[in-house]
Amino acid sequence: MLIVQKYGGTSVADIERIKKVAERVVNTARNGNRVVVVVSAMAGETDKLIELAQQVSSNPDEREMDLLLSTGERITSALTAMAIQELGHKAIALTGRQVGIITDTVHTKAKIARISGDKAKRALDEGYIVVVAGFQGITEDEGDVTTLGRGGSDLTAVAIASALDADLCEIYTDVEGVYTTDPNIVPEARKLERISYEEMLELASLGAKVLQTRSVEFAMKYNVPLVVRSSFVDAPGTLVVKEDSNMEQVLVSGVAYDKNQAKVTILGVPDRPGIAGHLFKTIADASIVVDMIVQNISSDGKSTDISFTIPKTDLPKARPLTDEIVNGLGAKGVSIDENIAKVSIVGVGMKTHSGVAAKMFQTLADQGINIKMISTSEIKVSCVIDSKYTELAVRVLHDAFDLASPSQ
Amino acid sequence: MLIVQKYGGTSVADIERIKKVAERVVNTARNGNRVVVVVSAMAGETDKLIELAQQVSSNPDEREMDLLLSTGERITSALTAMAIQELGHKAIALTGRQVGIITDTVHTKAKIARISGDKAKRALDEGYIVVVAGFQGITEDEGDVTTLGRGGSDLTAVAIASALDADLCEIYTDVEGVYTTDPNIVPEARKLERISYEEMLELASLGAKVLQTRSVEFAMKYNVPLVVRSSFVDAPGTLVVKEDSNMEQVLVSGVAYDKNQAKVTILGVPDRPGIAGHLFKTIADASIVVDMIVQNISSDGKSTDISFTIPKTDLPKARPLTDEIVNGLGAKGVSIDENIAKVSIVGVGMKTHSGVAAKMFQTLADQGINIKMISTSEIKVSCVIDSKYTELAVRVLHDAFDLASPSQ
Repeated sequence: MLIVQKYGGTSVADIERIKKVAERVVNTARNGNRVVVVVSAMAGETDKLIELAQQVSSNPDEREMDLLLSTGERITSALTAMAIQELGHKAIALTGRQVGIITDTVHTKAKIARISGDKAKRALDEGYIVVVAGFQGITEDEGDVTTLGRGGSDLTAVAIASALDADLCEIYTDVEGVYTTDPNIVPEARKLERISYEEMLELASLGAKVLQTRSVEFAMKYNVPLVVRSSFVDAPGTLVVKEDSNMEQVLVSGVAYDKNQAKVTILGVPDRPGIAGHLFKTIADASIVVDMIVQNISSDGKSTDISFTIPKTDLPKARPLTDEIVNGLGAKGVSIDENIAKVSIVGVGMKTHSGVAAKMFQTLADQGINIKMISTSEIKVSCVIDSKYTELAVRVLHDAFDLASPSQ
Repeated sequence: MLIVQKYGGTSVADIERIKKVAERVVNTARNGNRVVVVVSAMAGETDKLIELAQQVSSNPDEREMDLLLSTGERITSALTAMAIQELGHKAIALTGRQVGIITDTVHTKAKIARISGDKAKRALDEGYIVVVAGFQGITEDEGDVTTLGRGGSDLTAVAIASALDADLCEIYTDVEGVYTTDPNIVPEARKLERISYEEMLELASLGAKVLQTRSVEFAMKYNVPLVVRSSFVDAPGTLVVKEDSNMEQVLVSGVAYDKNQAKVTILGVPDRPGIAGHLFKTIADASIVVDMIVQNISSDGKSTDISFTIPKTDLPKARPLTDEIVNGLGAKGVSIDENIAKVSIVGVGMKTHSGVAAKMFQTLADQGINIKMISTSEIKVSCVIDSKYTELAVRVLHDAFDLASPSQ
C-alpha cells in the first residue's frame, strides 16, 4: 500500500516524540508499505514565530509572515528525516516547493492550485521514505513561499495522497479519533468508528479541531480515504469516507462548538437592493471568511440590521472595513460582539427526518439559553449563543440526542 | 550608490537589535542609496538547530542538515523586512533561492556556482529595500537547499554585491574593524584604516574571525570594495581594497591565531612517488580542507612522516579515512594532536623585505616556545605551536613588530 501519514504539532513536540514518529513510520515501511510522512511544526513553534513577528509589527506583512512561519515545518521535516535515517531506513526531507505544491498568492491562507509530486514519486521508487514539510507551498510566478492557513498540514497530506493516488491518508493527532463531542466537556462522549466526509466537514468547520476543513473538502472531492487516529495510543481511530447506503443513517452524529467567531452587526442599513452584495464583497476581497449571515427588517421598515460572524482573528482587518462600509452605505453604526459561541448538531440522518432543529431549540430554551442567530444546512443546525453557556449547551444537546449510547 | 549591508548574528540577536538594524538600513536608503541587506541567523539560533540535530543523530545527513540550518536566516530575513516596513519603507525578504544563488551539491559547505540577482534588481528598481537570507543557496538540478559554511552570509553579501555591481559592501559585525591582532589578547591592538584583500585573506584564513575567507577571495576576484564595521558603534571601520602603490607598504599588518586546527601525522609512509597525491586526494574527496603540510624523511631513509593540519570539526570524518590510508599505503600508524595553535604574521611589505621570518622564529624561541610546523607565503609566515602558548606568542609578536604604533 502507499500510505500518507500526517503528524501534528503535539506528535512532534520534541525530539523524543519525533523519534517515536520515526519508529512508527519505519515500522509501516517495513510492513511492506511505501510511506510519505507530512509533519507540522513542533508544538508551540508557530506561536513563538508569530510572537516574534508581533514584537516587530502590530500588523506584519503577510508575504513575510509566510516566509517566517514556513520555517517551523521545515525544521521538523529535516529532523524527522534524520531520525528515520538513524533507524537505518533511507529518508529524504522535501519542502512544499520540492514536492511541487503550487498555490495562489493569498498569503497566510493560500489555496493549492496544483501539486506535481514528481520528486516524491521518484524518491518513493528509489526506496526512500519521503518526509514533507506541511503547511506550505510556493506561488507560480514569483516563487514566493505561501502557507495554507492553520491546520494546513492536513491539507498538504490529503493533497499529496490525492496526487500520488495513495491508498490511505492517516492523520495522527493527540486524540484517538472523532468523538460525538469534545470529551473535555462531556466525559461520556463516544469515539465514532466511521463518519462521512459531509459530516466531518460540518464538524471541522464548526470548530471540532480534529481536521482542517479544507483538507476534508479536498478529501471528499478526490475521494481520499482518511483515518484520524492517535500517535500516542495504538487504537483504530475514526475512518472518514464517502457516505454509502450501508452506513447507518444516524440522526445526529455529533455536537460541535466554536468560540473563535465574533458577531458583527451593521446597524440601520438603508434597505436597497445590492447593499448586501456590496457589503460582503468588500469583506471577501479582504480574504475574510464570513460564516453565518442574518438580516432583520428594523422597526421603521426602511432600514435593516445585517449581522454576520467572522473569525475573531480577522477582527483587526475587519474593523476599518466595517467603518468604511457604514460611511459608504449611510448606515447608522457597527456593533461587534466577541462573547459569542456557535453550537451545532450534525448528522446525515437529518436529511430524512424532521423535528431535529425544533428539538435543539427546545433543549436550549429549557436551560434558559437565548439563541442569537440560527443557520441550517441539510445535515446540521447551528445556533449562536452567549459564549458563557457553551459547555452547558454542548452537554444538554449531547444528552438530548442520546449520543453516548453506541446505537441510538 | 548601491550598497550591500551584511549584519551578523550578534547584530540581529534579538528583536530590539533587529529594529536598530532596520533604522540604520532605512537611514542609508533615505540618504539616497539603494540598499540590499543580507542577514545571518539570530545569535545562538544556528547552534540551537545543530543541537536539535545532534539529539536525533550523532552524524546527521548533510542534505537534511542544510534544510534545517537554512531556516535560521530565513527567520531573520522575514523579521528584518517587517521591521523596515514598520518604519514606513517598502521592503521585501528574499531567500537564497529567490535571489538566484545556485551552488554545487557539497552540502554544509557549498560553493556558489552562479548568482542571477534578477528578482533583487527588479525589487530595487521598484523602490524596495531587499532583505536577503544569508548563508544559503539551492542546487541546480534537484533544487535542494544548500548552505555555504560557517560565516557564509559574508559570502552571500559579497556575491550579491558583485552580481548587482554594488558600489560598496559593508560587513556589520560586533567589532569595529580589522585589528592588528585580537584585542582580547593584546589590549593595545590597533584598528587598521585599510588593508589589502591579500592581507585580509591571510588574516581571515588564519582565524581572525572578522570575515569568512571565501568571501574575501570572492571580493578580491571581482574587486568588490568591502568595509568591516560595527553595528553598535558609529565609527568608520576598516576598508578592504585592492593593494595599490600608494598604500603604505607595512612590513607586518597583523598577528593572527587559530586554535581550531588539529595536526594529523601519518607515520612511516613508504617513500614512493605518488603517495602524497593519493593521500591528499582521499582527504580532499571528503571535502576536508587541508591547511599546512610538512613531510620529513625518517631516520631509516626509506619511509617518511607526513604531517598536515585540518579543521578540528573535520576530525570525525578524517579518522576513518586516515585508518584507510594507513592500511592502503602500508604505513606504520597515525598520530593526531588536537592541542595545537597556528600563529601567523601577515603583511604585504614582506614581499620586499627579508628577515621577517627569522625575527618571528627568534621572538618565539626567546620565550621557549617550540615550533612544530612552519609554512610561508609571499605575505605571511605561520608557525604551529603548542596551544597553551597561543596568547603569549601573539603578545610577544605584536610587541616585536611594534604593531601598537600607528606608523611603524
